[in-house]
Amino acid sequence: MDFTLSDRETHWRDRVRDFIDREIRPRQAEHDAEAHEGARWKVLGVIEEVKAKAKAAGLWNFFMPPQSGRAHVDDSFVFEGEQLTNLEYALCAEEMGKIGWASECFNCSAPDTGNMEVFHRYGTRAQKERWLRPLMNGEIRSAFLMTEPAVASSDATNIQTSMVRAKDSGGDHYVVNGRKWWSSGVGDPRCKVAILMGKTDTAANRHTQQSMLILDMETPGVAIERMLSVYGYDHAPHGHGEVLLKDVRVPAENVLLGEGRGFEIAQGRLGPGRIHHCMRTIGVAETAIEAMAKRLLTRVAFGKRIADHSVWEQRIAKARIDIEMTRLLCLKAADMMDKAGNKAAQQEIAMIKVAAPMMALQILDDAIQAHGGGGVSQDFGLAHAWAAMRTLRFADGPDEVHNRAIARHEFGKYAALPDAVAAKDMARR
Amino acid sequence: MDFTLSDRETHWRDRVRDFIDREIRPRQAEHDAEAHEGARWKVLGVIEEVKAKAKAAGLWNFFMPPQSGRAHVDDSFVFEGEQLTNLEYALCAEEMGKIGWASECFNCSAPDTGNMEVFHRYGTRAQKERWLRPLMNGEIRSAFLMTEPAVASSDATNIQTSMVRAKDSGGDHYVVNGRKWWSSGVGDPRCKVAILMGKTDTAANRHTQQSMLILDMETPGVAIERMLSVYGYDHAPHGHGEVLLKDVRVPAENVLLGEGRGFEIAQGRLGPGRIHHCMRTIGVAETAIEAMAKRLLTRVAFGKRIADHSVWEQRIAKARIDIEMTRLLCLKAADMMDKAGNKAAQQEIAMIKVAAPMMALQILDDAIQAHGGGGVSQDFGLAHAWAAMRTLRFADGPDEVHNRAIARHEFGKYAALPDAVAAKDMARR
Amino acid sequence: MDFTLSDRETHWRDRVRDFIDREIRPRQAEHDAEAHEGARWKVLGVIEEVKAKAKAAGLWNFFMPPQSGRAHVDDSFVFEGEQLTNLEYALCAEEMGKIGWASECFNCSAPDTGNMEVFHRYGTRAQKERWLRPLMNGEIRSAFLMTEPAVASSDATNIQTSMVRAKDSGGDHYVVNGRKWWSSGVGDPRCKVAILMGKTDTAANRHTQQSMLILDMETPGVAIERMLSVYGYDHAPHGHGEVLLKDVRVPAENVLLGEGRGFEIAQGRLGPGRIHHCMRTIGVAETAIEAMAKRLLTRVAFGKRIADHSVWEQRIAKARIDIEMTRLLCLKAADMMDKAGNKAAQQEIAMIKVAAPMMALQILDDAIQAHGGGGVSQDFGLAHAWAAMRTLRFADGPDEVHNRAIARHEFGKYAALPDAVAAKDMARR
Amino acid sequence: MDFTLSDRETHWRDRVRDFIDREIRPRQAEHDAEAHEGARWKVLGVIEEVKAKAKAAGLWNFFMPPQSGRAHVDDSFVFEGEQLTNLEYALCAEEMGKIGWASECFNCSAPDTGNMEVFHRYGTRAQKERWLRPLMNGEIRSAFLMTEPAVASSDATNIQTSMVRAKDSGGDHYVVNGRKWWSSGVGDPRCKVAILMGKTDTAANRHTQQSMLILDMETPGVAIERMLSVYGYDHAPHGHGEVLLKDVRVPAENVLLGEGRGFEIAQGRLGPGRIHHCMRTIGVAETAIEAMAKRLLTRVAFGKRIADHSVWEQRIAKARIDIEMTRLLCLKAADMMDKAGNKAAQQEIAMIKVAAPMMALQILDDAIQAHGGGGVSQDFGLAHAWAAMRTLRFADGPDEVHNRAIARHEFGKYAALPDAVAAKDMARR
Repeated sequence: MDFTLSDRETHWRDRVRDFIDREIRPRQAEHDAEAHEGARWKVLGVIEEVKAKAKAAGLWNFFMPPQSGRAHVDDSFVFEGEQLTNLEYALCAEEMGKIGWASECFNCSAPDTGNMEVFHRYGTRAQKERWLRPLMNGEIRSAFLMTEPAVASSDATNIQTSMVRAKDSGGDHYVVNGRKWWSSGVGDPRCKVAILMGKTDTAANRHTQQSMLILDMETPGVAIERMLSVYGYDHAPHGHGEVLLKDVRVPAENVLLGEGRGFEIAQGRLGPGRIHHCMRTIGVAETAIEAMAKRLLTRVAFGKRIADHSVWEQRIAKARIDIEMTRLLCLKAADMMDKAGNKAAQQEIAMIKVAAPMMALQILDDAIQAHGGGGVSQDFGLAHAWAAMRTLRFADGPDEVHNRAIARHEFGKYAALPDAVAAKDMARR
Repeated sequence: MDFTLSDRETHWRDRVRDFIDREIRPRQAEHDAEAHEGARWKVLGVIEEVKAKAKAAGLWNFFMPPQSGRAHVDDSFVFEGEQLTNLEYALCAEEMGKIGWASECFNCSAPDTGNMEVFHRYGTRAQKERWLRPLMNGEIRSAFLMTEPAVASSDATNIQTSMVRAKDSGGDHYVVNGRKWWSSGVGDPRCKVAILMGKTDTAANRHTQQSMLILDMETPGVAIERMLSVYGYDHAPHGHGEVLLKDVRVPAENVLLGEGRGFEIAQGRLGPGRIHHCMRTIGVAETAIEAMAKRLLTRVAFGKRIADHSVWEQRIAKARIDIEMTRLLCLKAADMMDKAGNKAAQQEIAMIKVAAPMMALQILDDAIQAHGGGGVSQDFGLAHAWAAMRTLRFADGPDEVHNRAIARHEFGKYAALPDAVAAKDMARR
Repeated sequence: MDFTLSDRETHWRDRVRDFIDREIRPRQAEHDAEAHEGARWKVLGVIEEVKAKAKAAGLWNFFMPPQSGRAHVDDSFVFEGEQLTNLEYALCAEEMGKIGWASECFNCSAPDTGNMEVFHRYGTRAQKERWLRPLMNGEIRSAFLMTEPAVASSDATNIQTSMVRAKDSGGDHYVVNGRKWWSSGVGDPRCKVAILMGKTDTAANRHTQQSMLILDMETPGVAIERMLSVYGYDHAPHGHGEVLLKDVRVPAENVLLGEGRGFEIAQGRLGPGRIHHCMRTIGVAETAIEAMAKRLLTRVAFGKRIADHSVWEQRIAKARIDIEMTRLLCLKAADMMDKAGNKAAQQEIAMIKVAAPMMALQILDDAIQAHGGGGVSQDFGLAHAWAAMRTLRFADGPDEVHNRAIARHEFGKYAALPDAVAAKDMARR
Repeated sequence: MDFTLSDRETHWRDRVRDFIDREIRPRQAEHDAEAHEGARWKVLGVIEEVKAKAKAAGLWNFFMPPQSGRAHVDDSFVFEGEQLTNLEYALCAEEMGKIGWASECFNCSAPDTGNMEVFHRYGTRAQKERWLRPLMNGEIRSAFLMTEPAVASSDATNIQTSMVRAKDSGGDHYVVNGRKWWSSGVGDPRCKVAILMGKTDTAANRHTQQSMLILDMETPGVAIERMLSVYGYDHAPHGHGEVLLKDVRVPAENVLLGEGRGFEIAQGRLGPGRIHHCMRTIGVAETAIEAMAKRLLTRVAFGKRIADHSVWEQRIAKARIDIEMTRLLCLKAADMMDKAGNKAAQQEIAMIKVAAPMMALQILDDAIQAHGGGGVSQDFGLAHAWAAMRTLRFADGPDEVHNRAIARHEFGKYAALPDAVAAKDMARR
C-alpha cells in the first residue's frame, strides 16, 4: 500500500488544476453573465472557447479508462487522446468539481461520459461513426432516458416505457410509448441523441424484460414537455426535462447489445460515472470548507473571530476528517476498478456513492450556516451547490437501495452460517 | 396542567382551518398561475379577494395579543376585531403554515405583524394614523431593515448603519447611511414603510448605541439594489431585497421610543413573531409527513409498498414524535407569554426558535427523499418549503446565538456555585 | 390547554421532592456503603427504614391510578392511601428518578408496580390476599418473566415457554418448561412471586396462544441459574436473573384473566409502567444536565472556563431543549391516559417510550464527556445511569418495534387513500 | 497511489491473524475462567504461555517502528526482532484488536509500547538496561502517570504534580507531590516503573514548565489508593489506578531528556500509540459488524429474518462504509508517519484519533441493539468493548481538543488571508 501520488497521478491532476486556474476560474463572471442573458437553453460561447483550448492541450475525453478500449462489438474505432486510469482521472475530477462548468470544458461531463462509454462498448461501427464521433468531438450532446415519474424508479424493474417490435412498410422497428423525466441535458440545443431504457418483453424474467435503444432526439413523437427545477434552480443551459414518448418509431438496429440486455448495460454504465460524480463531490466539499473557513476568519461576533468559537472548530474539524476519509474511499474504489474491474469494485462503488453526497451536503450546510443570509443567496454558490448535491442522494439509485446492496453483500459473508450459528447459539445453553 | 384544547382554542383553530379549506386551498392553482405570469413583483388579485372575505369573517389581525393593547406611548388607538391569546393564535398559525400564502390572507404575515406591534406599542397617535391604520387594513405592507451584509449581524452590536442627527434648513432630522439586506417584503409594490435599525451614538455603551427609525420607503436615497434568492427561489411577489441607504433624511420625530432604545425594541418585537413562525413551521411539518406517508403508501419497490420497508417506518415514527414534542414546546412558550409575559418566556421562546426549524427541515428532507426526483422539483412544494425553512436557522438570530443564551441561563442557575462546587470537589478527596 | 401546574400537582410533586431531600439524598453514602459490603443479594436496612417513614407520611403506593380501581375480577379489595392521576404521579416519578433507589422507598418501583396493577385488575380475592396485600405492604417483591434468550422477544409471538395443562393425582395444573432472562428483581431475597408469560395453545391464532400464570417463586423446578450484568454492573441488590423453568407445576387456578389472554394483559400492563419509566428518565436527565453544567463551570482549559467554550454551550442548550420537549410529551401522554384511557393514549405512550431514553442517553453521554475520566468511573454515577438507561431502548420492546407501531398508525390515517392518491397521481399528468 | 497490500504487509498481517486463530482465540474461555477466579489483580498463566509462543515465533515487540532506532541519547542498545513500518504494524494491530487480550501476548500492549519507545529514544544506557530490557522481555510492565483528578487534564498545562529539586544527605533528587488517576496497568503486580509528568518550574513559560521523570513504583510515598471502574468494569487484571504521590524522592538522573522537556516527550510519545489504538479499534468494529450480521441473520421477528428488515440493512451498510473509510484514514496516517515522520503526520493522527472511536462506538451500539438484552450482558462482549472504546473519546486528549488542533491547522491555511478576504468582500459591493 502506498498513499503517495505517483508522478503520473500528480502530473495529470496538476495539468487539470493549472488549466482551470488559468482558463476557467478567471472567466467565471463572464460565464455567469452569458448564462443569465437572453435565452435559458443555449450554447455558451465561453465554454466553446475553453473547450477548444482544452482539446488543443490534450485535456480532452480523458475520462475514458483504458479497459474501455476492449469494445464488445467493434473495436476498430480508435480514440485520440490520453486514457487515464480511473484513479488518475478521479484526481482530475476532484479539481473539475470545484467549478460547476469545468468538466464540460474537458468533454468530461455527464451524461455524455457514460453514454460515450456505452457507445464504445456496445455500438456498431456505424453507430459509433454517427453518434460517438461527434460526441467525442464535443459537437453534440446526449441524454440518458431512464427514470419515470409514474413509478418508483429506484427499483428499475418498475420501468414502464414500452418498446413493441413491429414490421410494416416503414421497416423493422420498435414503437415506443412512455414518459421519462430527469432527462438531464435535454435543454441543450445540441442534445441530439439519447440512450433509452424500456421494456421489450414484459413476460420475460425480471431482469431481462428491459432493453436499451439509441434514440435520435429528432424522431417524431419525442416531446420535451417541460423542464424541471431543482430547489429553485433550473440548471440551465442544460437542465432536466420531462420527455413524452408517443408512438416513437425507432429502427430495430438501434437496440444496444441485444434485446433483453438493458439491465446489463445499465449496471456497467453506472460504475465509472459514479466515481466521477463522487470525486467532483469531493472537489465541491473542498470549496465549501475553504469558503467556510475564510468566512469564519473574517467575521467577528461577541468580541472574537467566529473561527475562535469552539463550536465552529468542531465543525471544521469534522468537515476535514470527513473529506479525507471520503476521498480515500473514492480513490480506493477507483484503484479497484483499475486493477480488478468494475464488477469486483461494485461494493466500494456503492459505498462511495452513498458516502460522498452525504459528506458534502453536511459541509455545505455548515458553510451556509457560517455565511448566514449570504449562504442561501446567489452570492457564494453554496446553496446552488447544495441543491445539486442533494439530487445525488437518489440519482442513479437512492441511498437506501445502495445500502441494501451493501448490506446484502455483508450478510452474504455468512450465507452458509445461519444454521451453524443457530446451532451454536443453542449449544451455548 | 391540562392538555385538552379549550372550547375557545378549538373554535378559533377550526374557523381558520375551515376558512383555509374553503377559500384558500381550492385556489392554489389559481394563485400559482397568477404568481407566475407577468411581472414578478406585484399584487396578486386572488389574495386580495380572499383577504376581503377573511376580513368580513372577522378572521383578521387576530395575531395581536391582548396585552399588546397596553401601548406605551398612546393607547387611544383602538383595534377592531378579536384579540387572541398567543396560545389560541399559535393553533391558528399552525393551520396557516400549511399553505404558504395563507397567513397574508388574514393580514397575519411577517414582517407586518411584528411591525404593527411595534407601531402599536411605541408609535405616537400621528404615526399610528399614518402607518398602523393602513397596515391593519391590509392596504400597505412594511419591511424591517436590520441585517447588514458587511458584518456578522448575529451579534446585533455589529450593525453599522449610521444615523447622524442634523439640523439644517430642512429641519431636525437624521442623515442615514448604510446597507441592509434580507429586507423581506420590499418586492411588494405596496411596501411603503420600514422600521430601520442603526446607530445614533457609537460612543454609548454596547446596547444603547442603537435606535430605530420609521422610514418612509419613498424617501430619496432609499434604493432597492437587487433581490436575493433563497436556494434559487426569489420568493416573489414579496421577496428579499438589498437596500442601499445613501444620505437618507429621516425626520427626527420618526425615532421610536427614544434614541438609544433600538435594542430594547428589537428584543420585544421578536418574541411573538418567533412563536408565529414556529407554529407555522409545525404546520409545514404536518404537510411534509402527510406527503411522505402518502407517497410511501402508493409506490412499490422490491415487491412491497415502500411504506412497508422498515427504514421508512423509523423515519415516519421519528417525524411524528418530533412534531408532537415541538408543538407542545411551542404551545407552552405561548402559554407562558400569555400568563407571565414575553420576558419571562424568553428561554422557552429561544428553545422553540431553535427546535422547530431543525425538526421541520429533517422531516421535509425525508419527505423529499421519499419522493425522489419529484421531491426536489416544482411538483410537490417540498423543496420550496425546505428552502424557506432553512433560512429560519439564522433569521432573527442563528441557532448558535439562541443556544448560547439558553446555555447561559442554564449556567446561571449555578452562578453562586462555582466556588462551593470547587471546594466540595476538593473535599471529595 | 394550560401549562401551569395545578395546586394538587404541585403539592404531591413537592412532597415527594422534599421527602427525598430530607430522608433519601442525605443517606446516599450510607446506602452505597451498605450495598457494597457483604453479600450482593440482600435487603438493605437503609431502604427499609426510609420505607417506613414514607409509608407513615402517606407517600406510599401512590403510583396506582384511580381507574385501576375498576378491577375486572373482584373489586372488593380496598387500597389504603392516596391515588394520584397519571399526570400527578408522573411529576413525582421525575423526582424519584433523580436518585436510583428512591422509587423503592415509596413502594413505587418496577416491576412491582406493574405486577400490582395486574393483580388488582385481574386477580381473584384469594390471589389478592396472598400476593397483592404483601406487595402493597412492601413486605415481598415480585418479578415479571417475559423475555427469553433463545428468540427475538421483541416479537412477543416468538415466546416459547410451554404451559401444558395436565390433570393427575396432584390435581389440575400446568406443567411449565422454558427459559427466561432479564427477570429483574429476582436477586432480592424477598422476591416471592412472578407473573409468567408462556404459551398454552400453540395451535391458536397468533395473539391468543399466550397465557399469564402466577408463579410462586419457591415452586420446585424454578432455578435462578445466573445473574446478568449491564455494562459490567450487576444492579445488586435486585439484579436481573436468568431463570430455568423445568417441569414446574403451577395450579390451574393461577391463570390470570383466562387462558389465551396473556397478550391482552401484557398490553394493558405496560402502559403506565412506561410513563413511570419515562418520567424517571427525565429526572435522570435533569441530574445529568446539572452535573454537566457544574463541571463545566468549575474546570478551566485553554484560559477559560469550559462552560465558556461554545461547543459546550450548544450541547447544554440542546440538552435543555430536549428535556423540556420530552417532559411535555410524557405529561401529555399521562394526561391522555387519565382522560381517555390507556388504549386511547397508546400512540403517545409509544412515542415517549422511544423518545425519553434516547434523550437521556445523549445528555448523559455529553455529561460523561464533560467529566472525562471521572465520567466513566464510579465517582459521579453518570456511567451507571447511562448503562441503566441503555437497556430502556429495548426493554418492554425495542425502539424499532414501537416506531413500527407509530408508523403504522400514521399510515393508517390514509388507509382509504392509496387508490385515490394513485388515481390523482395519474391524473396529474 | 496503490491500495493493494504489499507482500510484506500481507505476510505480517497473516502471521498475526493465524497466530491469533491458532493460539489465542481457542483459549478465550480458559482466559476468562482464570481471570474471574481468585484475586482480581494478578498475572494470568494463559497469557504467559501464549507470550512464550509468540516470542518464539518472532511475533514480539514488532510495534517498534524502524525510525525509533534513532535513539536520541544512546543508540547502543540493540533490539532483537523484526521492526515493522507503522503501516505494516497497523494491519497487525487491527487483528489484535479483535480479541481484548491479544496485544499483550505479542508484548505490544499499552501503555508499555509508548513507554518503551520513550525509554529507547530518551533513556540512558543504564536506564535502558534497568527498565527497557525487562519491558522488552515482557518480564515487567509499566505505567504512564499523566492525568490528574483535580484539573482539566485535556489542557496539559493544567497539570499540578510538583517536582521540586532538592539536595540533601540523600543526594540530588526531586521531591514529588501530586495525585494521578487513570494510571492504566498499575493493577498488574509486575508494574514496576512509571513515566511521570509533573512541573519542575511553574515560573517557566507554558510549555516548558513540565518534566518527565522515571518513577520506580516501589519508591516510598507512592500509593495506589483505589482502582477505578469503566462503566461497571474494572479492567482487571491490569486496571486503572488512582495514585497518590506524597513526598516521593526521585533521583535527579531519572529526568528524561532534560528538565522542562516533558511536553516535548508527551507529544512525540502519543503519535504511534494513537495509530495502534485506532487500528485495534477497527478490529473491534469488525468483530461488532460480524456479531451484528450473524445475530440479524439468525433471529426472526414479524415473519422474517431481522436481517431482512430494511432499517437494519441501512445500519449494516453504514457500518461497513464507516469501517472502510476509517481504516483507510488510519493506514494513510501510518504511511505518512513512515515516510514523512510523526510530526508531518500529526493532522492525520489527530483526525483518526477522533474518527475511529466514534465509528466503533456507533457500530457497537447498533450491534448491542441487535442483540437486545444479550447485547448489554456479559454474553457477547459487546458492552465490554463499548465501555472500553468510550474512554478513547477522551484518553490521550478529548475529541474537542484534537478537533481544535485540526481546525486551527485548517484555518492556518488562510492565515495571510483575512485582510485580503475582507478587502475583496468589501470590493464585491
